[in-house]
Amino acid sequence: MFHGVVPPLCTPLTDDGEVDTASLERLTAFQLDAGVHGLFVGGSTGEIAQLTDTARDIALRTVVATAAGQVPVLAGAIDTGTLRVLDHARRAKAIGADAVVVTAPFYVGVTEPEVRAHYELLHAALDLPLVAYDIPANTGFKLPHALLASLAQDKVIAAVKDSSGDLEGFQRVLDGTAGSGAGCLTGSETLADLAMARGADGIVPGLGNVDPHGYVRLYDAARRGDHAAAQAEQRRLTALFGIIEIPDRTRIGRMSGALGAFKAALAARGVIRSGRTQAPLLPLTADEVRAVAARLDAAGLG
Amino acid sequence: MFHGVVPPLCTPLTDDGEVDTASLERLTAFQLDAGVHGLFVGGSTGEIAQLTDTARDIALRTVVATAAGQVPVLAGAIDTGTLRVLDHARRAKAIGADAVVVTAPFYVGVTEPEVRAHYELLHAALDLPLVAYDIPANTGFKLPHALLASLAQDKVIAAVKDSSGDLEGFQRVLDGTAGSGAGCLTGSETLADLAMARGADGIVPGLGNVDPHGYVRLYDAARRGDHAAAQAEQRRLTALFGIIEIPDRTRIGRMSGALGAFKAALAARGVIRSGRTQAPLLPLTADEVRAVAARLDAAGLG
Amino acid sequence: MFHGVVPPLCTPLTDDGEVDTASLERLTAFQLDAGVHGLFVGGSTGEIAQLTDTARDIALRTVVATAAGQVPVLAGAIDTGTLRVLDHARRAKAIGADAVVVTAPFYVGVTEPEVRAHYELLHAALDLPLVAYDIPANTGFKLPHALLASLAQDKVIAAVKDSSGDLEGFQRVLDGTAGSGAGCLTGSETLADLAMARGADGIVPGLGNVDPHGYVRLYDAARRGDHAAAQAEQRRLTALFGIIEIPDRTRIGRMSGALGAFKAALAARGVIRSGRTQAPLLPLTADEVRAVAARLDAAGLG
Amino acid sequence: MFHGVVPPLCTPLTDDGEVDTASLERLTAFQLDAGVHGLFVGGSTGEIAQLTDTARDIALRTVVATAAGQVPVLAGAIDTGTLRVLDHARRAKAIGADAVVVTAPFYVGVTEPEVRAHYELLHAALDLPLVAYDIPANTGFKLPHALLASLAQDKVIAAVKDSSGDLEGFQRVLDGTAGSGAGCLTGSETLADLAMARGADGIVPGLGNVDPHGYVRLYDAARRGDHAAAQAEQRRLTALFGIIEIPDRTRIGRMSGALGAFKAALAARGVIRSGRTQAPLLPLTADEVRAVAARLDAAGLG
Repeated sequence: MFHGVVPPLCTPLTDDGEVDTASLERLTAFQLDAGVHGLFVGGSTGEIAQLTDTARDIALRTVVATAAGQVPVLAGAIDTGTLRVLDHARRAKAIGADAVVVTAPFYVGVTEPEVRAHYELLHAALDLPLVAYDIPANTGFKLPHALLASLAQDKVIAAVKDSSGDLEGFQRVLDGTAGSGAGCLTGSETLADLAMARGADGIVPGLGNVDPHGYVRLYDAARRGDHAAAQAEQRRLTALFGIIEIPDRTRIGRMSGALGAFKAALAARGVIRSGRTQAPLLPLTADEVRAVAARLDAAGLG
Repeated sequence: MFHGVVPPLCTPLTDDGEVDTASLERLTAFQLDAGVHGLFVGGSTGEIAQLTDTARDIALRTVVATAAGQVPVLAGAIDTGTLRVLDHARRAKAIGADAVVVTAPFYVGVTEPEVRAHYELLHAALDLPLVAYDIPANTGFKLPHALLASLAQDKVIAAVKDSSGDLEGFQRVLDGTAGSGAGCLTGSETLADLAMARGADGIVPGLGNVDPHGYVRLYDAARRGDHAAAQAEQRRLTALFGIIEIPDRTRIGRMSGALGAFKAALAARGVIRSGRTQAPLLPLTADEVRAVAARLDAAGLG
Repeated sequence: MFHGVVPPLCTPLTDDGEVDTASLERLTAFQLDAGVHGLFVGGSTGEIAQLTDTARDIALRTVVATAAGQVPVLAGAIDTGTLRVLDHARRAKAIGADAVVVTAPFYVGVTEPEVRAHYELLHAALDLPLVAYDIPANTGFKLPHALLASLAQDKVIAAVKDSSGDLEGFQRVLDGTAGSGAGCLTGSETLADLAMARGADGIVPGLGNVDPHGYVRLYDAARRGDHAAAQAEQRRLTALFGIIEIPDRTRIGRMSGALGAFKAALAARGVIRSGRTQAPLLPLTADEVRAVAARLDAAGLG
Repeated sequence: MFHGVVPPLCTPLTDDGEVDTASLERLTAFQLDAGVHGLFVGGSTGEIAQLTDTARDIALRTVVATAAGQVPVLAGAIDTGTLRVLDHARRAKAIGADAVVVTAPFYVGVTEPEVRAHYELLHAALDLPLVAYDIPANTGFKLPHALLASLAQDKVIAAVKDSSGDLEGFQRVLDGTAGSGAGCLTGSETLADLAMARGADGIVPGLGNVDPHGYVRLYDAARRGDHAAAQAEQRRLTALFGIIEIPDRTRIGRMSGALGAFKAALAARGVIRSGRTQAPLLPLTADEVRAVAARLDAAGLG
């Protein structure tokens, strides 16, 4: 289940800040048409941290219904503590998710034994595959490669999504989980070809919202061992990823800026209606939105 | 409303991990008997990050009912994004909280303008005083003193709870909020006398769960300008605070260790039934529990 | 030897970037006239990290000659490794320093046992009192209070200079070194009265370059137990310390800005000839220099 | 000049802690025999932070004499401030270095404009190519890719050595410096094949001390476009790099451990006489030394 291109879907919003289900249906269909191999709802890119439980559920329900079993749907169950994550995961299962994606606990600093307990308790309580999500920039805790290897070998986790930006660490995760059957997915937009060359099973690129066809081509080239083609596609996508540098960083955060750029690009491509992001994330300025659209035009994706 | 000793209550748990309401009632009564000036439910010390929404609500309802209006009850509304905080805050208001305590958004990195938007949106949507909670170790964002001053002068926030450990920064908050009417509370267990000497309105000490009488004496001494008495009481409390050093830090985190020590101490004093903490926080070992009890005995609090 | 006000002297420079010995003599005399109890040459404030070995030696020689035994002269021996520090310390001893001030090793990450070895080797090799200098913002390593206590009780170090900004930690250093005879000096400009109230032996304030009389008054008030007078003086000095906020932080660093402000203030007071700082630290703009001078005028120190 | 395998040479020491010049001559010859393309003396791996100026000069003199012009010799000029670096660089030039390698200033926090000034002043004052050395774990400052690109395009720097561990950032450096003529070298032991695939000009691997033949094979394979061969060699070297995990991290630091392991391996291979490291770095235990030797044997390098 854990392979291929699995974009972490944006959550389009109406002008009232509600989930724009029509846009989300179009985004889902756009991804499926491009040939993605799975869909990840409720990741950081999906603004899960900004969405209410109600909004999280609506987004997941919309994607599950639209995907209609064509590809697996992974649901983020991102929260500070084990029982809170469990509540989200159970709702996700009821809605129809095929797996849940879970970070280390955060807000309160934890030790490695406490993180292990977190995943083991969730595994014991849940009848759904568990994906360990390593995103230390957000949680403040880097999942140790030896812990991931151990959890994979013990069948506690079914996959790893690595958004740490640390390819050397990812190599160790690949080595440590080898033979366990656990899938290893990279969250990197710009090192995806190299992660594939190293043995990654798949890619979870935020930029995949905007250009899923590109990531599917990259993945296919890598799978057939055509490094040159994968690298050329990566080069093109890395240039496109420059849209996240457009927003003014003194005004809006790294994530707000990236999300706003992705959503502005999706709106420019006509996939979603509005580039609006959820509070407290600030929106791009009109100039920034125009700059994103211009960059897309220049890339032939206008 | 925002002055005096306002302990951030522990949340006692049953062996099944449910809120032990009988113990929480006793803890609340113990605090009221000691003469505290307010109660803070659902702070970091209250394991809010580990409790489900249901458990959060039960804890708050229990304390509100037991306090019965004798002192104000502050409720933590701690979550990653504005709308999630708003959901918690509305439930807290419905249950009877007198104010809500809100950190900077976390998980997703934010800018100062985004944090300002967060508090302004909450203020506009809520009919309840808002306390800004500065706890950068947990959120990764230090609330800038100039932002706090501006929010206080604009009546967006009604108080500040400073758990940053940075007394120099707290001095600037005191200076910047002067004349705004906003209360300034320190979260420090060990610099409380100095914070009071600098002009703090009150103290929110985790250790106050265990020894509220000590903090009330310290506060009273400070209020009447008796620095020597305040410092002597502080010295005694700082020694008692050494119980948080007992747990082995390679096994359980700083917060788990402190919480576990507070709860073990409360159980040793007969105030609550069990020292259990909520997953994924690991419990103290039996030896550590005994060491805490021995330290309490030595301090005459056994 | 380790008590009272011990300002970390700025190193005035000529337009060619050489040590301006005439200005440094005036600065030394200015401090002695104000009644300081010691002089610290070659601290972070003295731009030791930017000065060549030759310039370091000239500065120290100038101060030793001017002080002429009236007060002790402490010399920074700040470098990345033990043998490099030893070279600096031996030169300082030959020039006439009464003690050397030494940080944790830096550039290469070290463990607590390696830091202990560092101080023990220096103590064994040097016939000069050793001051442990805790400045984690610069070295990346916080000297643990238990290590400092142990080194003090073993007579490896003769004093601690705490520039960590962590008053709670400083309290533990005070408690841990009690009875060892080691002096405990705070490097805080703005919490000096509180550090004294807690039992500090002295103050090493960068701002003391500009207003040594103020810090001497504060120290004297604290020594005679007059908290109110100490706090009033502290309040005045804290306001004056606002000059370090004048430089634009997007252009010059925290240290450059503070140093530039101190030197601009000393030039405005006529104590030194030029506010120039050493490369790569950027100088204040002319507007910023004027703003510093205006602030001094307003404080009656023009 | 800046291409190929350029190992950052260890500095072998005698039992008295002096530079073991005979061992260093053997190490240099060992590298030249293996076909390396340059030699880097006085890097972090060369314990430059722990060596006195005298020892730094002896080491450089030894390598320059042994290399005798066969390959370029790069010398680290690593220090906290511009003028201190300049002193080191001038001595290195006098001894015969072909280029100097310079980090961002450290100890005192700096801004990007101050770092730019640092390199520009050095370039103006020195008649020797300048290599910008990005090692944020040691300096606390990540050299921004846009700054490196600008310095390269302006011919201020002649090359970049990237030891940041951030391959995505290195990609941007490669893109930004394209056409400038500046060489781009990776300091990664374990991602060298990928860095080469991305367009790196060379590799500066600490592990190259131990197995230069392996890195030369990897480099040659990458140069002729044989990704499979480069990756296979990388896989073998990555396994060998596991020797740095042998030392106990609670006792000795990351750098001490890696250096100690490299030196122990070189001693086991008979290239140098002793695995001793310089104070305050702690040595490996006898068991750890044996474990390193056993790992080498198993790798066929005993």
